[in-house]
Amino acid sequence: MNKVAEVIPAYTYGTTEIAKSSVSLDELEKLKASAGFTAQDEHFLHMAGEVLADQTQQIVAQWRSGIIASIPNLARHSRTPEGEPIPEYLGQSNLRFQQWILDTCLRPYDQDWLNYQQEIALRHTSLKKNQADGVRSTAFVPFHDIVAFVAVMNETIKPYLASKGNTEEEVAGMHLAWCRSLQMQIALWSRPYFDAAQKSSDHSINEW
Amino acid sequence: MNKVAEVIPAYTYGTTEIAKSSVSLDELEKLKASAGFTAQDEHFLHMAGEVLADQTQQIVAQWRSGIIASIPNLARHSRTPEGEPIPEYLGQSNLRFQQWILDTCLRPYDQDWLNYQQEIALRHTSLKKNQADGVRSTAFVPFHDIVAFVAVMNETIKPYLASKGNTEEEVAGMHLAWCRSLQMQIALWSRPYFDAAQKSSDHSINEW
Ligand code: HEM
Ligand code: HEM
Repeated sequence: MNKVAEVIPAYTYGTTEIAKSSVSLDELEKLKASAGFTAQDEHFLHMAGEVLADQTQQIVAQWRSGIIASIPNLARHSRTPEGEPIPEYLGQSNLRFQQWILDTCLRPYDQDWLNYQQEIALRHTSLKKNQADGVRSTAFVPFHDIVAFVAVMNETIKPYLASKGNTEEEVAGMHLAWCRSLQMQIALWSRPYFDAAQKSSDHSINEW
Repeated sequence: MNKVAEVIPAYTYGTTEIAKSSVSLDELEKLKASAGFTAQDEHFLHMAGEVLADQTQQIVAQWRSGIIASIPNLARHSRTPEGEPIPEYLGQSNLRFQQWILDTCLRPYDQDWLNYQQEIALRHTSLKKNQADGVRSTAFVPFHDIVAFVAVMNETIKPYLASKGNTEEEVAGMHLAWCRSLQMQIALWSRPYFDAAQKSSDHSINEW
């Protein structure tokens, strides 16, 4: 397995700690059809994994320190409620974020992947945010900001995909596969948010 | 105003029939920041509107007759529960879909636009689907399929943007602005779905 560091705190992919996804493998197949995701995308994602493997630190730094940190409405999610930085929170979740890039590219989209999709989503909701790192921060990342930020990620990944001398066609193929995967992941992430909203009509947890 | 046809059945943009969006203009500004959407994107969307204006019919035909119609899990939403085609439903909603392309490119993203975003989203949920055209069809389009299909729309719009001799840089600018807008729209659309899920914990309307 391809890992960005020997120890990645709270990275529990494929372990028994991770609950089974509410989305089935059959639903995932249908989702692939809706996104136009095929075996060719798997091929290009694998290529992307090789291209991005030694760039994950820079990429996540650009996203989180370069972009998110300068948007107050997003930056607050890695800080205390009083607005103080929490370096270990950022450091540890950055490592998991880096690993997610590799997982997006190199992992088979099987039951373990589905389960971890749900886990990552939950770690952005009030059901699990802050727990992995034992911190005090915002209760959740609103779903709509996650969806919007994907536009930024899709755009800024391009130069990294193009940085290793692949042909234009290969770069375009890798980028398309990346965008399709991210759209599927957002679709999967919306499930725990929907379920949380549905379960809590009384105390009005709507983390839109 | 730029319209794809003189009469567009059930196209009620900006009329008093349309309820006020639950999302405020202030929240929209924050959403723009999360997606990296700026005045430059407005400029490029306007350019895209001119480029796409005489191609909306072909584009919607490719999406709905070319792609959705061949994916059974998506095609069913324009058919009766028994699987019969409903040509007037497709025809009328295709016209509104065409008009949406122009609105995405040429309308100011103001209160009317926000309100109509909510209306379009509702017309994919059980709260409003089928009503505009008075048809009998599936109760709703699942949210996750909409998110996934955006990957297809973002990819297939490219050749249409490039078909009018604009420079590579202009085409890239138009495409980026388009992708950012669509991501914001999906974020906005998720709101009525969340609200519906939240309101109906008892009879379990979760249209994920
Ligand atoms: C508005 C945008 C976003 C913000 C502000 C944000 C913020 C955060 C925060 C605070 C954490 C730590 C979660 C925890 O307490 O356990 C986190 C983790 C993570 N985020 Fe995001 N996130 C955003 C969007 C995204 C997107 C779009 C993706 C990928 C599609 C993503 C991928 C991840 C990953 C992989 C982790 C590590 C998961 C884990 O905690 O184990 N995030 N994010
Ligand atoms: C899985 C993908 C989708 C399916 C199967 C689908 C299906 C439909 C259906 C059945 C209608 C008629 C709604 C009604 O009964 O009033 C409709 C309308 C429409 N759809 Fe979608 N849709 C999908 C995704 C999208 C996406 C991603 C967009 C744009 C981002 C979009 C834009 C529209 C627009 C603009 C209309 C006209 C709204 C109206 O009814 O006034 N759709 N769609």
